[in-house]
Amino acid sequence: MGNELFGEIKEDCWQIAAGIELFHNFTLMHDDIMDKASLRRGKTTVHVRNGANTAILSGDVMLVQAYSRLEDICVEYQSWILKLFNQTAREVCEGQQYDMDYESRQQVSLDEYINMIKLKTSVLLAASLKMGAIVGGATVHNCDRVYSFGKNLGIAFQLQDDYLDCFGDPAKFGKQVGGDILRNKKTCLLIKAEELACGSDKDSLARLLAFQPQNETEEAEKVQGILEIYRTTGVEQVTRELITNYAQKAMDHLDQVVVVSTRKQPLQQLAEYLLHRDY
Amino acid sequence: MGNELFGEIKEDCWQIAAGIELFHNFTLMHDDIMDKASLRRGKTTVHVRNGANTAILSGDVMLVQAYSRLEDICVEYQSWILKLFNQTAREVCEGQQYDMDYESRQQVSLDEYINMIKLKTSVLLAASLKMGAIVGGATVHNCDRVYSFGKNLGIAFQLQDDYLDCFGDPAKFGKQVGGDILRNKKTCLLIKAEELACGSDKDSLARLLAFQPQNETEEAEKVQGILEIYRTTGVEQVTRELITNYAQKAMDHLDQVVVVSTRKQPLQQLAEYLLHRDY
Repeated sequence: MGNELFGEIKEDCWQIAAGIELFHNFTLMHDDIMDKASLRRGKTTVHVRNGANTAILSGDVMLVQAYSRLEDICVEYQSWILKLFNQTAREVCEGQQYDMDYESRQQVSLDEYINMIKLKTSVLLAASLKMGAIVGGATVHNCDRVYSFGKNLGIAFQLQDDYLDCFGDPAKFGKQVGGDILRNKKTCLLIKAEELACGSDKDSLARLLAFQPQNETEEAEKVQGILEIYRTTGVEQVTRELITNYAQKAMDHLDQVVVVSTRKQPLQQLAEYLLHRDY
Repeated sequence: MGNELFGEIKEDCWQIAAGIELFHNFTLMHDDIMDKASLRRGKTTVHVRNGANTAILSGDVMLVQAYSRLEDICVEYQSWILKLFNQTAREVCEGQQYDMDYESRQQVSLDEYINMIKLKTSVLLAASLKMGAIVGGATVHNCDRVYSFGKNLGIAFQLQDDYLDCFGDPAKFGKQVGGDILRNKKTCLLIKAEELACGSDKDSLARLLAFQPQNETEEAEKVQGILEIYRTTGVEQVTRELITNYAQKAMDHLDQVVVVSTRKQPLQQLAEYLLHRDY
């Protein structure tokens, strides 16, 4: 779509897209080891099925295979793509390290959290779009705008994911609602709640965070209790506004791309689809 | 040295060499996790000091940093270097997987073993030399000869390492002599001994392999017993001949490089230094 914003799709795009997809799956394979996750897309994870050593090594080879997809692309932009690929890969790894660090940290600020999700999630979306734009022959100005569109959209997307984990329709969301709450995950919602809660809300929040449910009834109790605090402290509303702000920033950057407006429609539709999903 | 075989050293070589060095150290960091090694170059390994997760992620970033060194090299050969880098990285990972697989296998043939050390060790030496040759402006013929020189030299070097683990001077070798023997590692020597031993040697070898020493006296007993078998079965001699053969193959390839012979001297000296070391 980054390529097609500027011109007919070129062969090189398929190679680069496959490289990004391989890179993304390499990070999932290694993340699953680190997170001790046993399931991915409904299947047993590699480190559980074949052992951690094979999962480490398979991930390593997938990263190499990702780079292999860049071997034969046009030399005109090969260095540029390689540079952006390296920068993005480095940032995604940094984001993962922050994510792990924050698990054991007492306090994480909203800025730190947003920076973490920017690195871990949204730079990959941004870089994917920009690589397409580069292959499509876009100017530096247009490439940068497309990158900023992707970066802000990615942040909005991840915040939306955090929001749906709390307020999504369980029948549509596909994941257990309240999963982040049960793991005391420091998402945007919890960070803002700790900042805004006062009086009895503050005490309740501290009590509920310390509470370790032993059965489903207690789990529901913890989730409902914290959701109630998210509502009374206005965190639900604050999060919706944050999402809207990042989505708006994304759209502003897309507006500034110098290309006939009909070409922007597919990306506008994608952004709307991602941000108005309730699942 | 691969560059200087053909011309004045070029700036790009330092970048590529740094990339190879980063790649090599990335493999060591991940290998140490897989091998549960607690020491590397006399220091605590990263996974022991900072945890396996950080070691996985740091290794990943080192691999990305390795590729970053290829970002700004001359576009004239950038694709070629990237392709060779990818191929080599893939092969080194394959070699590591074979090495792990062979630990739990009953039988490993000499061909399989040599193929494993070729992938795990010598393709990196071969590729390093060839990348230098490419930057030095060598012809395809010369690049291929340099690669074969490095590949065969690397195999000879690894076989020499196996040999010294058994017959090296403990005062000079820097590692415990007999380390491979105590771990029942299927090196060239053990593989040949299992093939050549018969009669009482065959029985002794089976008994010594099953024997798990509980103290230093018993360890010395196992090492001495197996060394004796390596001598009586002629494995010591067979290994020396294998080393000489691969070293000779390496030298033959170097001979076929079309360049004035004085330029070859540093590589000839390096090869002699590597193969006549007793430490």
